[in-house]
Amino acid sequence: MKKIINNPADVVPEMVNGMVRLYPQYIEKIDGTEVMVRSDKESMQGKVGIVSGGGSGHEPSHAGFVGKGMLSAAVAGQVFTSPTPDQIYEAIKAVDSGKGVFLVIKNYSGDVMNFDMAKDMAEMDDIEVKSIIVNDDIAVEDSLYTQGRRGVAGTVLMHKILGAAADQGASLDEIEELAKKVLPNLKTIGVALSAATVPEVGKPGFELAEDEIEYGVGIHSEPGYRREKIKPSKELVAELIEKLDEELHLDKDKKYAVLINGMGATPLMEQYVFGNDVLDALEAKGVKPVFTKAGNYMTSIEMAGISLTIFELAEDKWLEYLNYPVETIAW
Amino acid sequence: MKKIINNPADVVPEMVNGMVRLYPQYIEKIDGTEVMVRSDKESMQGKVGIVSGGGSGHEPSHAGFVGKGMLSAAVAGQVFTSPTPDQIYEAIKAVDSGKGVFLVIKNYSGDVMNFDMAKDMAEMDDIEVKSIIVNDDIAVEDSLYTQGRRGVAGTVLMHKILGAAADQGASLDEIEELAKKVLPNLKTIGVALSAATVPEVGKPGFELAEDEIEYGVGIHSEPGYRREKIKPSKELVAELIEKLDEELHLDKDKKYAVLINGMGATPLMEQYVFGNDVLDALEAKGVKPVFTKAGNYMTSIEMAGISLTIFELAEDKWLEYLNYPVETIAW
Repeated sequence: MKKIINNPADVVPEMVNGMVRLYPQYIEKIDGTEVMVRSDKESMQGKVGIVSGGGSGHEPSHAGFVGKGMLSAAVAGQVFTSPTPDQIYEAIKAVDSGKGVFLVIKNYSGDVMNFDMAKDMAEMDDIEVKSIIVNDDIAVEDSLYTQGRRGVAGTVLMHKILGAAADQGASLDEIEELAKKVLPNLKTIGVALSAATVPEVGKPGFELAEDEIEYGVGIHSEPGYRREKIKPSKELVAELIEKLDEELHLDKDKKYAVLINGMGATPLMEQYVFGNDVLDALEAKGVKPVFTKAGNYMTSIEMAGISLTIFELAEDKWLEYLNYPVETIAW
Repeated sequence: MKKIINNPADVVPEMVNGMVRLYPQYIEKIDGTEVMVRSDKESMQGKVGIVSGGGSGHEPSHAGFVGKGMLSAAVAGQVFTSPTPDQIYEAIKAVDSGKGVFLVIKNYSGDVMNFDMAKDMAEMDDIEVKSIIVNDDIAVEDSLYTQGRRGVAGTVLMHKILGAAADQGASLDEIEELAKKVLPNLKTIGVALSAATVPEVGKPGFELAEDEIEYGVGIHSEPGYRREKIKPSKELVAELIEKLDEELHLDKDKKYAVLINGMGATPLMEQYVFGNDVLDALEAKGVKPVFTKAGNYMTSIEMAGISLTIFELAEDKWLEYLNYPVETIAW
């Protein structure tokens, strides 16, 4: 393992300290926790708080999306490990301004359980809490740490939509309704060229041959659905688009957003080539997305790989939410 | 070589197409070239144009910094190869609005020669052109493709400063004077954990052992100044800070900006841990930077590695320029 770190056991607290010290204009840490909360407290007054989080190793998720117009707080667990309920509870308390708090949870058993326990703790304090479990990854049903489908890069678009709605004064019920409407329109699938190495483990989560890729790998190195020799980008894209089309029934008369997500070690050079192929493949179906973005948003430490999210914008308002200005590290 | 691309010979045009199609709100391509120019033409009227560029493989540099408040255009050469003079000349013509054009050139022999030829071509059209050669990398004197010091990540801060000044109406002479004042205050040094693979070459530019790093490697895999076993981040930082201190004579009564730059495959997890150590090391010298930023800005395709730029803010106005709002893909 060759990493720019100190003691592997200290990676998360040192990383969190680094983030809040590098970006004090956006985030600050709640003392004694790994909870990062919006520095601009004024912007949260009278509004629903939006909290997300999960295991570390997905940077810039989730703290990179904390700031005016997006998340109110993010909770960082150990690497690839859910944050504990008490830390999530601290985040909820910190961002509640009387209008309630909404939790965005990626669908992993540990996260679902711990966010749910934190919700119960907060409700005992009379803080109203609602939540959504994001399960946008269409690659596989059930997985190593998941019942049903996994939550992956589409979660960042959920943050964006709900954050904008909250900033515009939506109520907790309205945000819950919005999240439920968005969820079935948000689909992701990815491909891995190499695995991530968890610092405290010291070796990659799996091995691929020098010419091999795996379709549908999760963001914690969970198995995908097929391994084979790498193909040209256009052919990879064709398969991923077909899988997404089966779910979304792409329609030239509908509006879509596209998020291309690098997994950590995949250079922008490859992401832009891939993006060009995605836009070609969609164009061949008569689809011209109205919102597009590429970069590292939901990573898996230093995994090489890429995911493609397509989000059907069933309501015009959703495009406005995507374009709504934010003040964050990473959007 | 395992990359998400099609024909290696087509990487640059496909990447450029991807960028302009993914981000039409910021950039568009000049037909028949790999020049990306600001979409918002109105924002360039009556202002000095700022043009940069160089070999591809450093994404998001330079096109990721084209947009209101920053660059007017960027020219993308083949991978790690200077763009040709005719393409640079097209960029200059496209952004001149009668106030002249300023070129930001990284110090590589091919770039210096080709940008200079483009300048001559533009001057024959009565376009006034001035330029700066950025040579912020303190690691080595002279290098594979460079006489003197190389231009690396500090170049992005030069773009930011000059772009803000141009947007505020600075004249060509004022921008030249500003660039000359900024340059000696801008110093960078980096470390590599692995090399980049140029698509048309198909293998890494150099090899490092599994536990080995190299100090001072350039962004085209040019040799650095020492190889040794990897050390904890704190110890790497200590060496890099000492080198920068020898150049900048860090002073607790002066103001500094810090840019931490990932080389392509280095995850944000490591960048934030490294950033935390940088801020500790500076604090030990009584220095608290007034501007800090971390991420992938001047990459070397999929090289793993990191660079540290320290920029002494000799004038208060420079901090305003760094914080001046921009509309770009990647700042």
